[in-house]
Amino acid sequence: VTDALVECVPNVSEGRDRAVVARLAATIRAVADVRLAGVHTDPDHHRSVFTFLGAPAPVEAAALALAAEVVASVDMQRHQGSHPRIGALDVLPLVPLRGLSTAEAVTLAHRVGRAIGERHRLPVYYYGSAATRPARRSLPELRHGQYEGLLARLSSVDGEPDDGPARFDARAGAVLVGVRDVLVAFNVWLERDDLEAARAIARAVRESSGGLPGVQAMGVLLASRGVAQVALNLTDYRVTPIPVVYDRVCAEAARLGVGIRESELVGLAPRAAFAGRAPATVGLAVFADGQLLDAWLP
Amino acid sequence: VTDALVECVPNVSEGRDRAVVARLAATIRAVADVRLAGVHTDPDHHRSVFTFLGAPAPVEAAALALAAEVVASVDMQRHQGSHPRIGALDVLPLVPLRGLSTAEAVTLAHRVGRAIGERHRLPVYYYGSAATRPARRSLPELRHGQYEGLLARLSSVDGEPDDGPARFDARAGAVLVGVRDVLVAFNVWLERDDLEAARAIARAVRESSGGLPGVQAMGVLLASRGVAQVALNLTDYRVTPIPVVYDRVCAEAARLGVGIRESELVGLAPRAAFAGRAPATVGLAVFADGQLLDAWLP
Repeated sequence: VTDALVECVPNVSEGRDRAVVARLAATIRAVADVRLAGVHTDPDHHRSVFTFLGAPAPVEAAALALAAEVVASVDMQRHQGSHPRIGALDVLPLVPLRGLSTAEAVTLAHRVGRAIGERHRLPVYYYGSAATRPARRSLPELRHGQYEGLLARLSSVDGEPDDGPARFDARAGAVLVGVRDVLVAFNVWLERDDLEAARAIARAVRESSGGLPGVQAMGVLLASRGVAQVALNLTDYRVTPIPVVYDRVCAEAARLGVGIRESELVGLAPRAAFAGRAPATVGLAVFADGQLLDAWLP
Repeated sequence: VTDALVECVPNVSEGRDRAVVARLAATIRAVADVRLAGVHTDPDHHRSVFTFLGAPAPVEAAALALAAEVVASVDMQRHQGSHPRIGALDVLPLVPLRGLSTAEAVTLAHRVGRAIGERHRLPVYYYGSAATRPARRSLPELRHGQYEGLLARLSSVDGEPDDGPARFDARAGAVLVGVRDVLVAFNVWLERDDLEAARAIARAVRESSGGLPGVQAMGVLLASRGVAQVALNLTDYRVTPIPVVYDRVCAEAARLGVGIRESELVGLAPRAAFAGRAPATVGLAVFADGQLLDAWLP
């Protein structure tokens, strides 16, 4: 598998200190044969999402280098943000793009998780295809109770980590390492700070409350910008592509009398996720081709 | 020349209306086989820089589509910004990257310029390798007097446009079409709104006042952000790479007792322009690989 290609999309609980985010980006880029395709930082989520790609070995090296830098730089004890999280290196998903089976990606994820658990003495849980039991497949479920509930979880019967010690590290929390399919993270900004409207729209569109298949959604407030946001994950863009979600969000917003400001993509999206529509028609105002996953596949 | 590759870096005099910038980006992306690698917008410069790449024919089509959209959307009559400009589509440089001689790029530039001049009845001047006379090779010289001096220039002996009519279009001004080598546009933000310091640093580093070879620099104020900036062009990164300029700017700033906030890259830079230094060491805080020209060369 010489030309195997993996995408890694770590979410780190730091979205305010630009120097720290810069150091984390530089840490990833410093690994040979890894390409950092994007960095998305949000001060209200207090979270940064890095997207990098490479062969399994360099991606593994970059993930471990990033973990070390996160452990050194991010302190959960003062962390308050609008996005749920359980630790400093909150989630570390691996996405097999090419020349790599899901099973091989899971082996890679488990090796990365074990190394993080051992080196930093942190509890590691596996999710998605890397989960060790069905109850841990779902990320929202695994993150239930968040960082604040981690101490209790670690001492509970069902809370035993998959790797690393069942030790509560107040600075770093826990790490969720997973294997998943390509996911589109897509946020729609409302015109106003109407959190209730954002939540109502989220309820209307997400699968778990009877909305669109493969759609997770939550309403959050971006306090520093004074607007509310519908934060969306599309777990299967083939079933529900971006335009379908966007149009549905717009319809619900119109019904509630709330305007839409614009959308943003967190990380990359495959061209197919646009289902033939131009990015501008789903609110992605200034869109460049580097945001297409396809642009990074030689 | 089936795999010829050209970069086009139009600078448009609109950096405030996000809807217009979005429409311009979408216009470029709508042309098949063109990749839009970046959009850099600055509200104080009141200017946006688009970077796109492709074979000569699609690049030509995208340049003409962009010109039409700019003529329709941008009105110079109310334009006030901190960057010199002579028109709405201020400059349209073509950079032959591969499989294309400079002479072939000049032919392409002249075809694009002629079409813009004819379709929109605008004065077009050629600069760089596309210049029709030595006095027009230099962009700063060609832009001397700016938009406000264009009417007088058009009726002067030396002001005859290279293509299009010698007609003053108050909305669009003139278009400067050029062929040049890869150029690195790199800005350093100071900690304060000290415009005099930014200007003194610019004087110290630029070639025209005895500084570094291949470096153009000016001090500007970013009023809405309350900081001054040294805006730099590196016309030959092989002779003076980014770290040499950055270190010199830092030394001058230190001498003046002014701090540096961070740097920004406008458009792309070749990896070689970093001369082995990490982007973070030249103040480029959060840097992703899509900002490397190399990332777009298959």
